[in-house]
Amino acid sequence: MNIKNIDSPEMRSWLALSHVNISISKLQHFFENYSSITDLFELSEKQLQSLGFRQGLKEKLGSIDDARLEQDLAWFDSENKHLLPYTSHDYPPLLREIDSAPKILFVHGQKEVLKQHQIAIVGSRNPTPQGKDNAIEFARTLGKAGAVITSGLALGVDGFAHQSVLDKGLPTIAVAGTGLDRVYPARHKTMAQKIVENGALVSEFAIGTGVRATHFPARNRIISGMSLGTLVVEAAVKSGSLITARLAMEQGREVFAIPGSIHNPLARGCHALIKQGVKLVETAEEIIEELSALAIWQNESLLQPEKDTNKAVEGFTLDKEYQELIEHIDYDTTSMDCIVERTGLEIDVVSHMLLLLELNDHIVSVAGGYQRRSS
Amino acid sequence: MNIKNIDSPEMRSWLALSHVNISISKLQHFFENYSSITDLFELSEKQLQSLGFRQGLKEKLGSIDDARLEQDLAWFDSENKHLLPYTSHDYPPLLREIDSAPKILFVHGQKEVLKQHQIAIVGSRNPTPQGKDNAIEFARTLGKAGAVITSGLALGVDGFAHQSVLDKGLPTIAVAGTGLDRVYPARHKTMAQKIVENGALVSEFAIGTGVRATHFPARNRIISGMSLGTLVVEAAVKSGSLITARLAMEQGREVFAIPGSIHNPLARGCHALIKQGVKLVETAEEIIEELSALAIWQNESLLQPEKDTNKAVEGFTLDKEYQELIEHIDYDTTSMDCIVERTGLEIDVVSHMLLLLELNDHIVSVAGGYQRRSS
Repeated sequence: MNIKNIDSPEMRSWLALSHVNISISKLQHFFENYSSITDLFELSEKQLQSLGFRQGLKEKLGSIDDARLEQDLAWFDSENKHLLPYTSHDYPPLLREIDSAPKILFVHGQKEVLKQHQIAIVGSRNPTPQGKDNAIEFARTLGKAGAVITSGLALGVDGFAHQSVLDKGLPTIAVAGTGLDRVYPARHKTMAQKIVENGALVSEFAIGTGVRATHFPARNRIISGMSLGTLVVEAAVKSGSLITARLAMEQGREVFAIPGSIHNPLARGCHALIKQGVKLVETAEEIIEELSALAIWQNESLLQPEKDTNKAVEGFTLDKEYQELIEHIDYDTTSMDCIVERTGLEIDVVSHMLLLLELNDHIVSVAGGYQRRSS
Repeated sequence: MNIKNIDSPEMRSWLALSHVNISISKLQHFFENYSSITDLFELSEKQLQSLGFRQGLKEKLGSIDDARLEQDLAWFDSENKHLLPYTSHDYPPLLREIDSAPKILFVHGQKEVLKQHQIAIVGSRNPTPQGKDNAIEFARTLGKAGAVITSGLALGVDGFAHQSVLDKGLPTIAVAGTGLDRVYPARHKTMAQKIVENGALVSEFAIGTGVRATHFPARNRIISGMSLGTLVVEAAVKSGSLITARLAMEQGREVFAIPGSIHNPLARGCHALIKQGVKLVETAEEIIEELSALAIWQNESLLQPEKDTNKAVEGFTLDKEYQELIEHIDYDTTSMDCIVERTGLEIDVVSHMLLLLELNDHIVSVAGGYQRRSS
């Protein structure tokens, strides 16, 4: 579903839901039975409960203030402001794969960048000078190689990573922990405006949502969830960056960490990750190489290390393993169990490969499994 | 076998063998059939070949110059000079386990230290100031914890490690790549003399053997082979230290590497090792902890870490919401469903909060849910 008319009944329904705690899994169940989100507001408490929604939802849905909705709608005052329900074609495809995907995203900027290959760069709000340099250098090299740099708009590593690619006219995505009507931290207001022009600001939080500490871990799952991989530049052992890294791991995404001196307290978070098996990286090229090796789009222009421009680029053919996997997927719905059985591959491996195939439009994820698309 | 009488026929036989290339595996086969090494010199060429020795060994054994042997014997001019065939009770027990154990060791110093728990510290001949400090600090902490520090007497990391423990009156072992009648590098002559008093100089090379590049990798296998584990402090990607680390891995021993800035060329060898799965260490205590299990297994005295009283405790103040969430979690296992029900929060929100609490050691994730930890 694409919301074209900002003031459609569907739009109002999704906006209203931005004020209600409902998990995507419940909504998925709802959509197995109903076609439009507007229907949700027509159901009785009993019907809602029979769909698995928690007690009292009817009352909650009914209590959403109309004035509040009008305020929300007023935010959508320009063409580059979007509301993307998870059912939208514009919703970031990798994010849809995670367990706790946001049901809607507010987007301010170029929504197209959300579908591009993203690499998250996260780290300390107060990095060492070397950490700052590394954030800038890695972001620039990855950006030039065609990755969109995604981060959290925070001070420190986040900001340096965003600014580094902005300075080169390259796109970047900032995921906010507040509603998009405000910028936190305020010091990044100018940067946020540039991101709108050259990328996108993204939030799952309702318009008007202020700064709340508990929202930041939630924000972090979107940063890692949209990205192929997450790079931790410098981080203390107990820090939000380590939460992002852990979420990325749980989401089955790649995580990379830059090592540092054992006397640098901000290297300890990275070292802790490396001890857990996260990949130690010394150059951005290693990240590009790793993600290209994983990705079936290795022959596309994206994620080509600068150094490799002389390498002959062959046709857009799928790797043999991916071609074989596709052949195990029917044009009708094929369940995950069935694919695992047919291929004899581990479920982790299969799900990662399916993700990439879906991202490249070879297959489509549907209720109950996957369908092959005619090529 | 212990050689007590320096000028015994056995001693002369082993000394003679220091000039002949014979692998320990062939000698083991010989000892299955004969009881004394002197018998080797009585066998015919045919008998020797039937035991698997190479053609021409008889002639080689016969050609060993008596004058040369007298010179060798002249080196044993004090009670702290020893010849240890691999059959000796004094031979380092871990070294005997490796595939290419030296058939004999020349030892100058306190041969008892060879049977103590050793940890090898190796690294660049020209470390950075931080590398030097790390060598000194790790050696001292490991030495104080009861490990004998073993290294290669080279300039740089080797020397700093030896000197660090010598300064504390603790034992250290230096494995030389030359005969023990000379000290290489000459600059370490005074240090070598202190090592003799406070530990041991060790070599497999015949008296009179000079500096030969090919001998250093052979020397390195003894350093790693005598040790429970090998720590690489700082090393270039192509360096002798990395050879030692590789040998240690092949010998099934633990290897540890200290990370560093990605802009430090001497951290690259360590990073290369970590990428291969070698353990990244930030403190000597981690090595002690890791190796203590092995030491217990050997039923010998444990490595005791010094109490680290200065360890900084990083603060983390809980938000009110988190404090409330904790109060809904029991010290017994509390299921996710139960936590969701008690808090009335959405599962997504709860799971992210739990993650943060777990990262901060307030709760622990167990089968079936979470447990609160006593603070």
